Amino acid sequence: MASEPGPVLITGAGGFVGRALVHALAGTRPIIATDRTGLDFGGLPDVAVIPGEIDDRALVARLAAEPVSAIIHLATIPGGAAEADPARAACVNVAAPMTLFDALAAHGNTPRLLFASSIAVFGEPLPPRIDDAAPVRPILRYGAHKAMVEEWIATLTRRGAVRGLSLRLPGILARPPAPSGMTSAFLSNLFHALKTGEPITLPVSADATCWLLSRRAVTMQLLAMLELDCDPESARLNLPALRVRMGDLVAEIARQTGADPLLARHVPEDAIEAAFGAQPPLSTQAADTLGLTHDGDLAALVASALADI
Amino acid sequence: MASEPGPVLITGAGGFVGRALVHALAGTRPIIATDRTGLDFGGLPDVAVIPGEIDDRALVARLAAEPVSAIIHLATIPGGAAEADPARAACVNVAAPMTLFDALAAHGNTPRLLFASSIAVFGEPLPPRIDDAAPVRPILRYGAHKAMVEEWIATLTRRGAVRGLSLRLPGILARPPAPSGMTSAFLSNLFHALKTGEPITLPVSADATCWLLSRRAVTMQLLAMLELDCDPESARLNLPALRVRMGDLVAEIARQTGADPLLARHVPEDAIEAAFGAQPPLSTQAADTLGLTHDGDLAALVASALADI
Repeated sequence: MASEPGPVLITGAGGFVGRALVHALAGTRPIIATDRTGLDFGGLPDVAVIPGEIDDRALVARLAAEPVSAIIHLATIPGGAAEADPARAACVNVAAPMTLFDALAAHGNTPRLLFASSIAVFGEPLPPRIDDAAPVRPILRYGAHKAMVEEWIATLTRRGAVRGLSLRLPGILARPPAPSGMTSAFLSNLFHALKTGEPITLPVSADATCWLLSRRAVTMQLLAMLELDCDPESARLNLPALRVRMGDLVAEIARQTGADPLLARHVPEDAIEAAFGAQPPLSTQAADTLGLTHDGDLAALVASALADI
Repeated sequence: MASEPGPVLITGAGGFVGRALVHALAGTRPIIATDRTGLDFGGLPDVAVIPGEIDDRALVARLAAEPVSAIIHLATIPGGAAEADPARAACVNVAAPMTLFDALAAHGNTPRLLFASSIAVFGEPLPPRIDDAAPVRPILRYGAHKAMVEEWIATLTRRGAVRGLSLRLPGILARPPAPSGMTSAFLSNLFHALKTGEPITLPVSADATCWLLSRRAVTMQLLAMLELDCDPESARLNLPALRVRMGDLVAEIARQTGADPLLARHVPEDAIEAAFGAQPPLSTQAADTLGLTHDGDLAALVASALADI
């Protein structure tokens, strides 16, 4: 592990994944944490907190004032919220990171740049199998935004301005029950419902299949890529994830929480079943070669996700 | 040719290609012409002129007030100018068209959308041959912007919001000698120099090869795609272009103008030779199938380009 001179900038640091990353990194490297909210990192060593909106030019100027050795860009307006406000989402999801990365690269120190892209770049219906060569074909605005920023980062990487890696995140569990603007929120809500013994209606069938990762597992993946000395063949990586049948997920959460699995009712909605319930076998050879791993098995995934609640 | 109800919106209508399009279309369909400058279309029938900056929200709202049956989006900050002002270029080249297309699609009438993309999406060095399957690999910011908007249009087309076609323009001849912000300006400047008997230093070798189209030819291609009833297999098309050796181009312009070909000196600059002088054989099967054609031969290309001066 090479020692890095400058701090790591984490955008979206107040979010579900961002908070875990700050906690995991604190004390090992200086951190600059930015977000519009959620930056309560009191007590953590060497974490500088700079709140603001990512598309605010004054904030970008402040973030870019000092060279950073690495950037982890998590800030985003997710799927459902992006559909509800396309103009704002284009600004936050596309224009803002373009400007931010350019400003940070201007120091000339070629920072590592990890971008939280999404499996939404693949759109729907998905082909019978997804591998590293699968074409990008988004349907959601959010997926198009991610594909566009992947292109921007690949270009900046080709130019030698950054050392970019776009990591396509699957569903991450278990997010807080608050409104997240994510159409896939039902996945996390299932954990909360069964843990508290509440009934829940799932918009996908028991046979629906989803790619899932616990927050702990995705945090480990991001940390591994942050410390990567070399640059891989491709600047775009599909992340290893467990492919889980929804009925099996319900049964395992019920087993670990002692809840009645019948609290979860399946009332499939066509659009959501198509978008989040028909994820085919996933091959992630490039990421596997770099040593990235998913949670291992369903029991470990559920245990890790329940530990976050 | 289906009769279309609404007007055609042309952005960048005051530019070199835009002006030719407005003149070619005027009288056949109602036109809304927008640009920051150059909109002197007095005397042409049914051309509504709306001047403004394409990233001005008030202008977008005005342009989107009435449904249009088609959009030809030419407005852009070109290669060299985009490198000089990346933040402004990201705004004009990426964020502005995203917002504009969303606003225009909101009428629900699925307009035809022609986007002037660029061969800059292929970057450099180019592979030994470019065909319809050639991967996008930009180096210039401008090329990345075009690739990103191609992705946005492909997504909107998949959603049924527009009927989009991204057309990758090669070098278009002969542009006015005024500063254009284009690194490839030497191609057009060569015509002006020889026609007026002035010496010119070309930043590419005599053996450099470029893909070229006259303005007349590209205008014909755009008009053909505007009237296309069906949607082709791919929403991204490489346009047929003549592949011309620079020494042959100099000789043919000299022949047609009576100028001394030695007025043109070749002093290759590595970066420009790589970007504009090493364009390999070009196969454009998809566009050929749709009936698009280039100028035919070098003599016709040069004659057509000289007619614009």
